[in-house]
Amino acid sequence: MNKESYLAAAYPFWGQLSQEERTILLQNCVEMTYEKGVGVHRSDVDCKGALLLLSGTLRVYILSEEGREVTLFRIHAGESCVLSASCLLDTIAFDLLIDAAEAAQALVIPTSVLHPIMERNPYVGLYMYKQATERFSDVMWTMQQILFMGVDRRVAIFLWDEMTRQGKPLLKITHDELARNIGSAREVVTKVMKYFAGEGIVQLKRGQVEILDREKLRALL
Amino acid sequence: MNKESYLAAAYPFWGQLSQEERTILLQNCVEMTYEKGVGVHRSDVDCKGALLLLSGTLRVYILSEEGREVTLFRIHAGESCVLSASCLLDTIAFDLLIDAAEAAQALVIPTSVLHPIMERNPYVGLYMYKQATERFSDVMWTMQQILFMGVDRRVAIFLWDEMTRQGKPLLKITHDELARNIGSAREVVTKVMKYFAGEGIVQLKRGQVEILDREKLRALL
Repeated sequence: MNKESYLAAAYPFWGQLSQEERTILLQNCVEMTYEKGVGVHRSDVDCKGALLLLSGTLRVYILSEEGREVTLFRIHAGESCVLSASCLLDTIAFDLLIDAAEAAQALVIPTSVLHPIMERNPYVGLYMYKQATERFSDVMWTMQQILFMGVDRRVAIFLWDEMTRQGKPLLKITHDELARNIGSAREVVTKVMKYFAGEGIVQLKRGQVEILDREKLRALL
Repeated sequence: MNKESYLAAAYPFWGQLSQEERTILLQNCVEMTYEKGVGVHRSDVDCKGALLLLSGTLRVYILSEEGREVTLFRIHAGESCVLSASCLLDTIAFDLLIDAAEAAQALVIPTSVLHPIMERNPYVGLYMYKQATERFSDVMWTMQQILFMGVDRRVAIFLWDEMTRQGKPLLKITHDELARNIGSAREVVTKVMKYFAGEGIVQLKRGQVEILDREKLRALL
């Protein structure tokens, strides 16, 4: 694919842009390469712009005062991320960090280029705020489950006990059974398990859960 | 003020509507009255529409699995709230409840009226997602401070100790001094103090903090 196909596929406002606006974006977007582990963005020190991931995976996280990292979500190839342009979203007052979970390539539309187009064309801002709302809604859900309801802990305790009882890391159990065991809803357990999988604690298979990282699991107990 | 002045003042998209769209909104918005304490909205069972508060105060909160309520923010007279139209914001997957913290009057634009206009006019959706982003960003910030960083607890411990030491509930202390005492930033302390004030735990005065509810404060220690 060429640049234009990538941008048109990722940004739903592409069809609402004038030819001139498309040309400006195409001529000014920048292809960036990130090695695994490097910092891609810090909202408290810069404002990169809208980012479209071509390959690899990025991780969006926050830092606690003690320097503990909490992963909010991951960005996969083909997905865009507008939170790296948070200075354009004047309602966000929240520090986010992004780093490369795997080696990654991205097309970045710099803030200076995006800003005037966003001011003129409401569809651009509509898309950006819509995506921000979606990401935040998701993150709030995670924070609520993890920090407030303690579902992650209940799931972790159950998995640890089962692993010990069965004497093996591969457990035959569905999310539905897990949910009934800890007294929660299946969709809640599914989200927590995806969070665990993203953190490398478990691997999910059909009707099975494999515990990959005993130490990380134990830390949640 | 008449209805149109209220709507024009509260909704920045008013100037971007056609005369016909304004007429539809004016003819179909509904004035609602809520007694203190009644439920105004539950996102899991209904989708009221966009709400503009004329008087009183509404409280937006979530419920834990154990039924504990956590206040996210309050809506004051003159403010609008789009989260009561969360079915129109197709990216929100999160259950919110709203009740009347004080007797309240509101102008509600029903979902059925707002939806077609939002589909046609990008400025309406832009406003709604922008406000949702702002509310969520604020809420995430609160949740991070309260649940993850424990700043609320540190502030509560400091206030409790000072009250005991000085033998009176009215403490002469600025947010800046408080922040330095607990090793946090002034803006963080200000947000936590506003949260405490909203919960009726303290009353804020210039350079002073008065502890109103010792029991609620003690519960945070």
